[in-house]
Amino acid sequence: MNLKEIRKKIIEGDFSSLLNFGNGNKNVHPTEVAKMLSAVPTDAALQAYNSLPTITQVKVFPYFSLPLQKTIAETISTSRATFILNELSSDDRVAFYSSLKGVECSNLLKLLNENNKDAVHDILGYPENSVARLINTEFATITSQLTIGEASEHLRKNHKDTETANVIYVIDKEGKLIDDIPMRRFVLNEPSKKVADILDGFCASLKMTDTKADAVQKFKEYDRVVLPVTNAENILLGVLTVDDVMDAAEQIDTKEIQNFGGVEGLDYPYVKTSFFSLIKKRATWLIVLFVGEMLTATAMGYFDAEISKAVVLALFVPLIISSGGNSGSQAATLIIRAMALKELSIKDWWFVMRREILSGLTLGFILGTIGFIRIELWQNLHLYNYGPHYFLLALTIFFSLIGIVMWGTLSGSMIPIVLKKFKLDPATSSAPLVATLVDVTGLIIYFTIAAFILKGTIL
Amino acid sequence: MNLKEIRKKIIEGDFSSLLNFGNGNKNVHPTEVAKMLSAVPTDAALQAYNSLPTITQVKVFPYFSLPLQKTIAETISTSRATFILNELSSDDRVAFYSSLKGVECSNLLKLLNENNKDAVHDILGYPENSVARLINTEFATITSQLTIGEASEHLRKNHKDTETANVIYVIDKEGKLIDDIPMRRFVLNEPSKKVADILDGFCASLKMTDTKADAVQKFKEYDRVVLPVTNAENILLGVLTVDDVMDAAEQIDTKEIQNFGGVEGLDYPYVKTSFFSLIKKRATWLIVLFVGEMLTATAMGYFDAEISKAVVLALFVPLIISSGGNSGSQAATLIIRAMALKELSIKDWWFVMRREILSGLTLGFILGTIGFIRIELWQNLHLYNYGPHYFLLALTIFFSLIGIVMWGTLSGSMIPIVLKKFKLDPATSSAPLVATLVDVTGLIIYFTIAAFILKGTIL
Repeated sequence: MNLKEIRKKIIEGDFSSLLNFGNGNKNVHPTEVAKMLSAVPTDAALQAYNSLPTITQVKVFPYFSLPLQKTIAETISTSRATFILNELSSDDRVAFYSSLKGVECSNLLKLLNENNKDAVHDILGYPENSVARLINTEFATITSQLTIGEASEHLRKNHKDTETANVIYVIDKEGKLIDDIPMRRFVLNEPSKKVADILDGFCASLKMTDTKADAVQKFKEYDRVVLPVTNAENILLGVLTVDDVMDAAEQIDTKEIQNFGGVEGLDYPYVKTSFFSLIKKRATWLIVLFVGEMLTATAMGYFDAEISKAVVLALFVPLIISSGGNSGSQAATLIIRAMALKELSIKDWWFVMRREILSGLTLGFILGTIGFIRIELWQNLHLYNYGPHYFLLALTIFFSLIGIVMWGTLSGSMIPIVLKKFKLDPATSSAPLVATLVDVTGLIIYFTIAAFILKGTIL
Repeated sequence: MNLKEIRKKIIEGDFSSLLNFGNGNKNVHPTEVAKMLSAVPTDAALQAYNSLPTITQVKVFPYFSLPLQKTIAETISTSRATFILNELSSDDRVAFYSSLKGVECSNLLKLLNENNKDAVHDILGYPENSVARLINTEFATITSQLTIGEASEHLRKNHKDTETANVIYVIDKEGKLIDDIPMRRFVLNEPSKKVADILDGFCASLKMTDTKADAVQKFKEYDRVVLPVTNAENILLGVLTVDDVMDAAEQIDTKEIQNFGGVEGLDYPYVKTSFFSLIKKRATWLIVLFVGEMLTATAMGYFDAEISKAVVLALFVPLIISSGGNSGSQAATLIIRAMALKELSIKDWWFVMRREILSGLTLGFILGTIGFIRIELWQNLHLYNYGPHYFLLALTIFFSLIGIVMWGTLSGSMIPIVLKKFKLDPATSSAPLVATLVDVTGLIIYFTIAAFILKGTIL
């Protein structure tokens, strides 16, 4: 049965097939059920979800988008909501409560039992971009004096069969983290061996206050799928699985991409973002850029005498400033991404600067040459008449492009580094600064070079 | 000891401390050794690497960047290179050979034993962005008739203690994939139970020909850390771990970000890319954009009479076209990212179009109003004299901005969808098309509205 048929069945209120999917038939993963329900109108989805057994509801819940989770929690019966929210795994629970605002959050917090409520409260006290917000507080621990057989027995009795039990943590009697053991070692070694003898003495871990970006980095460095998370005293408080980090990494990249495109990072996917909130996110940046760019009108105003004497100069204004802008955004993109991936740091500024000045000169020379040829060609093919001094005009364009592309490249590469130096997010703030700076100074460079070369002829 | 001291020691040829790190002392992860060696000049790194025991060399090798791996393989003694390349895990080996070109690749392929050589050959036959390129071909399998105790015994005897043994695959006698079992179930269930009884009947898997982007998607959907990979006949050929997919996801995002910034995706990190290759990647796009933007000079040429009559019109050209460009790149960014994350597909074009027309009108109205106020204010505060018809000029700017922002938003959102429809990569090709289209048509919109409103006054 394909999604379309399922959709039809759900909308028609014929949930029996869906129920078979989600319950009797073990072959359907909760994510499939969530996908089916997310594909139909919310009313139908809610009705269908309501008809599922509570245990399936718990399993499916985390696979819904956060807005849909909220709608469900607020419309389903209180007793069911209480059950679902208390049974969620701790990371999914925190993700859900993190997405709620003020009153909504405190209303739904009331449904949690004391333990869960305290735990959520604790976690929400950590900054939003900290690792603490992603951890799972259910994990399996042992002490190192046991044999493998004893440890297995202990785990069998005390731990549920959950994802987080793939790696077992060895702690001392104060709860401090000593080492981690992948569960496979329990199977691949003789049961009579001591746990202490199969430890590798190396255990990468994260701190609760590390940022999500730090975590992404560490997972990559150590090629791990799960990492333990401790407090400053090295007491084990939770574990972080790589799938949660992947989501975080994707969100970070999405924000970075949206910032590059001059949009404030969206909190929800494009299709789920309301029209009003979309406009707000976009208008802010467009206005900032617009107000910055108004300086170009001011700059052009200073050269109005030149323009009225040589209108031909105005024709190349868009070409000139877009070249500066493009080379600036190229450089900014390369540097910002390299810094985000920690390939570059602030202290490399001198390396970057030398390299980008040279790049800028080279690229400017290439574009300048094309611009020069363009004017010569159009003039000689009689496609446009740039007047008797067209050669000097072509020279003006040539040198202006070298200057502007070099300047664009240099600003584009240095502004992100300077912003980072002042602890500002380069991805968020570089675009408007680079664009405004390069456009305004580009005009000044262009008209200054024009005045110098064309003085006494057309100026 | 910090990195700086280590670096000093390595350069001075005092490897003993490093040796202790990489060998005697179990507390150092290979990634740490790789980091130390990557931080010193290549000569010193090679010498230090040479002095490591071969088994440590094998462990450290995959943590180097691909260019450094190549240098090592080509400069180290043939016998050591042979050992290292044959001992690498299959995914690291394929990653290494994938990065080599023609002759280099065939020269180094000679060092592999027959089995490994055939395996690498097979994999290199799959497309570069396919899952096949990332799989690990060492994995642990059992059949379902065994008890857990028997299966554990079998695994203990036949499988090495490697990452890929975290999940065991149940196959039938033809090698077809039946199910997967996390190793933890072997510990958490009684040894006398049958394997068949602990299967959950659900096993997400990938095909060899799936793209890396498909894999990223599937890992996210099913919250898995490892997925089996089969051929079209469902025969298990390898496993894919999430850390390799994270790297792939990051590369995909980096390429997307670089494309947005108008740079061809770099093959290596910024700092590792040679100056020449960096210029090549950047020049291509700058030239494409430049040649496209030359149309603005042509467009402006058509309006030279208007400009010479009303120089004041030229002053707002940069502001007007940058607003179109900014709104276009906002819209393109949102749509391209939403398509990359599969939140949107081509068939949603009508939803997007309606939404973006409305967004464009709203945003244009906001910017238009600011522009209008700007002119009125400057005129009345005597900051600039726009002449007696400044009110009509302000109106021209107001309507032009509405038209241009709307047009920019619409083009920015539709071009990626159209490109995708024609199977072109929206991230790669949208930027130049949107920029050129919006700038050129923006000028036409502006001067046409100006002609309409200002006819008989200053035009």
